[in-house]
Amino acid sequence: MTDIFLQENERIDDLQLKGLKIIQNPEGFCFGIDAVLLANFCDVKPNSTIVDLGTGTGIIPLILYGKNKINKIYGIEIQEQVANMAKRSMELNNLDEKIDILNIDLKNVEEVIEVNSIDVVVSNPPYMDTGTGKVNPSDKKAISRHEIMCELEDVIEKAKRLLKHNGRFYMVHRPNRLTDILYYLRKHKLEPKTLRFIHPKASKSPNLVLIKAIKAAKPELKIDPPLYVYDELGQYTDEIHNIYGLDK
Amino acid sequence: MTDIFLQENERIDDLQLKGLKIIQNPEGFCFGIDAVLLANFCDVKPNSTIVDLGTGTGIIPLILYGKNKINKIYGIEIQEQVANMAKRSMELNNLDEKIDILNIDLKNVEEVIEVNSIDVVVSNPPYMDTGTGKVNPSDKKAISRHEIMCELEDVIEKAKRLLKHNGRFYMVHRPNRLTDILYYLRKHKLEPKTLRFIHPKASKSPNLVLIKAIKAAKPELKIDPPLYVYDELGQYTDEIHNIYGLDK
Repeated sequence: MTDIFLQENERIDDLQLKGLKIIQNPEGFCFGIDAVLLANFCDVKPNSTIVDLGTGTGIIPLILYGKNKINKIYGIEIQEQVANMAKRSMELNNLDEKIDILNIDLKNVEEVIEVNSIDVVVSNPPYMDTGTGKVNPSDKKAISRHEIMCELEDVIEKAKRLLKHNGRFYMVHRPNRLTDILYYLRKHKLEPKTLRFIHPKASKSPNLVLIKAIKAAKPELKIDPPLYVYDELGQYTDEIHNIYGLDK
Repeated sequence: MTDIFLQENERIDDLQLKGLKIIQNPEGFCFGIDAVLLANFCDVKPNSTIVDLGTGTGIIPLILYGKNKINKIYGIEIQEQVANMAKRSMELNNLDEKIDILNIDLKNVEEVIEVNSIDVVVSNPPYMDTGTGKVNPSDKKAISRHEIMCELEDVIEKAKRLLKHNGRFYMVHRPNRLTDILYYLRKHKLEPKTLRFIHPKASKSPNLVLIKAIKAAKPELKIDPPLYVYDELGQYTDEIHNIYGLDK
């Protein structure tokens, strides 16, 4: 019966959260641990209106809906095929009125969503790492790096535009972009309030960072205790078990 | 015999590093673990010329001298009494030609040290935390916060002025100032290259952060594995033992 929702290579997975289901494509678009950690990091007040910039499979709106009393969530996704898949996930859950998947470029989001109107903006953007391998100091590479920084700045600038005064922005990213992230957040008056680093294990460098920023807030950064994914024996830590075992 | 170097309440401590000794005053001016960790975090090439902005007891110049082949170190200290004590420590070690303690405001450092001439600038500045207790949103508090941010920016701006192209800046600070630190470093073209967080233990938030920045470098931030001071049994970790046991 649910086959009417599926296209080639796609499958339906149970989120183990209030019966919610999600369509994924193992050949292309599956959600990662970063999206799950980000959704669990968000502190959402009842009846909030939320925007997810770059929603992908729609995993973050689904988890936020499953854990909170939501007014409305907009999921922005530029890639047509993924946006279509996310839209079908919402239909599958009868949530297509509550969670609105918009297949647009986030640069144009103000044409669809009113500025200064949103309680929470969340984003798990593409990481586009510059930190892999040697950097080639050619013009091409420099242009590419410049574009990369613009894209991160676009996400931050759009989040600022959409949020109400004191609205909250949550993002997950790579720690090697931390200077860019904190610099652009402050530049755009989204003051960084909390960082949480995710480490594969306690003896390793962090490979992800969760960020909470508040529009027009005073400067005061708190760093949460680290989140370790595996313990020294290679087993998931209790905290990871708790996050994945929600409402089981 | 060494009593000629001492004033009231002062004592001489052995640094357990190539016979070096330091004068401290337990009533007022003693060095902390942050200075020792910072000095050990610095990577110093042979025959470097170094400036320590806010040298206090002179602990950082002494450790850097003990661990490296140094051309010259300038220790800048605004407080007359502490600068005088640090000067006597250098005389005690027969290092007053190698390590020059200058009792000046760092804002005036360019009157004494040539700009664009220094290989390494290091600083363990006063932390002046805004993060303790509730913030009073009065004018006085706002002015005070503004001044605090200027002082951190002064340290960063002076480091940039003193350093050669590609010269290195090392600092230790509180993680709750990380936005200010990364923002001002980038603003002044000292690109942050490495962060290392110091945690009291693995389950706790970091309470110190070590920062390495390079003048005019390309953006690329690396985060080192964390440094834990105590293990879960409350004992010093091996790394802390190694740092304090140098050349024993």
